[in-house]
Amino acid sequence: MSELRHDPVQKRWVIIAKERGQRPIEFKEEKEKPIDPKQCPFCEGNESKTPPEIMAIRDPNSTPNGPGWKLRVIPNKFPALTIEGELGRRGFGVFDMMNGIGAHEVIIETQKHNLHMGEMPLDHLLLVTTVYRERIKDLYKDKRFRYVLIFKNYGAQSGASIAHPHTQLIATPITPRTIAEELDSCKEHYLAKERCLFCDIINQELALEERIAYQNRHFIVICPFASRFPFECWVLPKVHSHDYTETPDDILRYFVDALQKTLWALKESLDDPPYNFLLHTAPSTTPRPGKPTYWSTLPYDYHWHIEIIPRLVRVAGFEWGTGFYINPVSPELAAESIRKILEKRAENEEKQ
Amino acid sequence: MSELRHDPVQKRWVIIAKERGQRPIEFKEEKEKPIDPKQCPFCEGNESKTPPEIMAIRDPNSTPNGPGWKLRVIPNKFPALTIEGELGRRGFGVFDMMNGIGAHEVIIETQKHNLHMGEMPLDHLLLVTTVYRERIKDLYKDKRFRYVLIFKNYGAQSGASIAHPHTQLIATPITPRTIAEELDSCKEHYLAKERCLFCDIINQELALEERIAYQNRHFIVICPFASRFPFECWVLPKVHSHDYTETPDDILRYFVDALQKTLWALKESLDDPPYNFLLHTAPSTTPRPGKPTYWSTLPYDYHWHIEIIPRLVRVAGFEWGTGFYINPVSPELAAESIRKILEKRAENEEKQ
Repeated sequence: MSELRHDPVQKRWVIIAKERGQRPIEFKEEKEKPIDPKQCPFCEGNESKTPPEIMAIRDPNSTPNGPGWKLRVIPNKFPALTIEGELGRRGFGVFDMMNGIGAHEVIIETQKHNLHMGEMPLDHLLLVTTVYRERIKDLYKDKRFRYVLIFKNYGAQSGASIAHPHTQLIATPITPRTIAEELDSCKEHYLAKERCLFCDIINQELALEERIAYQNRHFIVICPFASRFPFECWVLPKVHSHDYTETPDDILRYFVDALQKTLWALKESLDDPPYNFLLHTAPSTTPRPGKPTYWSTLPYDYHWHIEIIPRLVRVAGFEWGTGFYINPVSPELAAESIRKILEKRAENEEKQ
Repeated sequence: MSELRHDPVQKRWVIIAKERGQRPIEFKEEKEKPIDPKQCPFCEGNESKTPPEIMAIRDPNSTPNGPGWKLRVIPNKFPALTIEGELGRRGFGVFDMMNGIGAHEVIIETQKHNLHMGEMPLDHLLLVTTVYRERIKDLYKDKRFRYVLIFKNYGAQSGASIAHPHTQLIATPITPRTIAEELDSCKEHYLAKERCLFCDIINQELALEERIAYQNRHFIVICPFASRFPFECWVLPKVHSHDYTETPDDILRYFVDALQKTLWALKESLDDPPYNFLLHTAPSTTPRPGKPTYWSTLPYDYHWHIEIIPRLVRVAGFEWGTGFYINPVSPELAAESIRKILEKRAENEEKQ
């Protein structure tokens, strides 16, 4: 079993996933292995190459773990965290640790081996994002889990090991540091001003316009003021919304529109770049007997959103090591570029 | 001029370095350009290809910006921050910003175009680390600067753009977030226990032995308990030492021995991997009129060290986005592997 370990200096948890690693002697030989699509474990007909599915959207006449599906959710074959067991919180001198308990799932988004999310039909993308919502809800029923991370690696440079469209999910017994810090900032702002910090940012960006890449009735896409990466984009609900899992389908439609258009625009303007996205949402509010939830359940202490990071520049170690990023493209320029390509698309669609 | 911008949610500064970036339309064409060694701006004879040197260790008979040097320090040709100007701290709504004031220098470590730091003669590496010390001291005389980052990118995968051995230095008007957080942890620990947090870690590691990769009289190399990356190594002085700039030459000799051996062992055991290293040291303690220094000058609120990160695995966006790392190699295994290769080296050296 893997182990969760805490660094007392940087106050950060890491997963030491021994099972995932090779022995050091083998390590240096690790290379990218391109997969023959026929061998792709995520393609239809190859269901036996994956662990049994957790859920699937499939034809009523099909059988689980066989063909005839639109979307499948499966456990990760090489999980960083495992679902069975106790947390086993313990300490040793200055160090804290616990068992590597959690869930690590893969959402196979579609049967199509090569379908960019920016080109996915809106109805299908709605299905995908609905499944995100339902998986988070389901996992939050497990009291051991504090947070569910939904993230996507697209392209080998982004960390993806399989090309077939998929999203990953990791449920963790701790709230990841970055999320916890964002919650802290939001809480501090709310306690001082009785307003949501993200709502204040959105209002300022709506007034200024220069960093808006796209907007529809319910969602805004901005290249954030202090973007760490060129063409970093955040998709946020315009009206305050604490928790992704509470988003109803009719609002999710607008989210899907904004997400798909942004990914499409990045693909078009940057020559199909590798990218990552991360869903940032409120942690589990499941009450735990005998101890308070780690985070308050103030309805204004978070504002869910998705962060999209195209992988255009190499991140040097100094950036990891310091948290200090150098971004060679201003967010104003990036937003303008996305806006223009989406305006052109809208014009072309009108003509047709 | 570039701009320093503050993210109000993640409380992090970024450098928006417009001059460094290409226009978006050109961006997608960016490719690695291998450099013909004859064209290398860091090689002897090509001094005119770099900005005029800030300092150099050179033959008494040579002239500045000409051949005949052992080591040169030059301004970065494409600086992320510029030395001239006022900080111009300002705010706009929820956002904070200041001018991109700072220093960005390159330390050309040697004339040799291909010399791995793990194979550098110890006397020469001592020269290099002495220059680190003197450059930090010199830049801390400038009251605008709060921190000086010394870091090295080795190999294209690490973010290096030039192969010729060099280290970079960035002086910043703010203390980078990670350093500030480490200082906070150390201060908290000191106020609670009147001991240095790093000293406590070192004592525990010395007793346990399993994560010690190497040690000599004055320095210890550990694969830290909560290593984020496979074969991550920290080199720390055994006896408490707050500030790298206060390290005398006779102690630096032991540092250089530990650093060189660790880098050599990583090169040997991992097939010459790309790597980054970062010097973590106390920020400037220059008193600023009318306001206290940002960090206390308690002698126990930091313990300088160097972090070495081999770039063996791709960092997926989720790791940046969450601060939550998955490491497939346990630090105990990594330390054992380095220890063994260094023991073998010592045996071979004895035989000769």
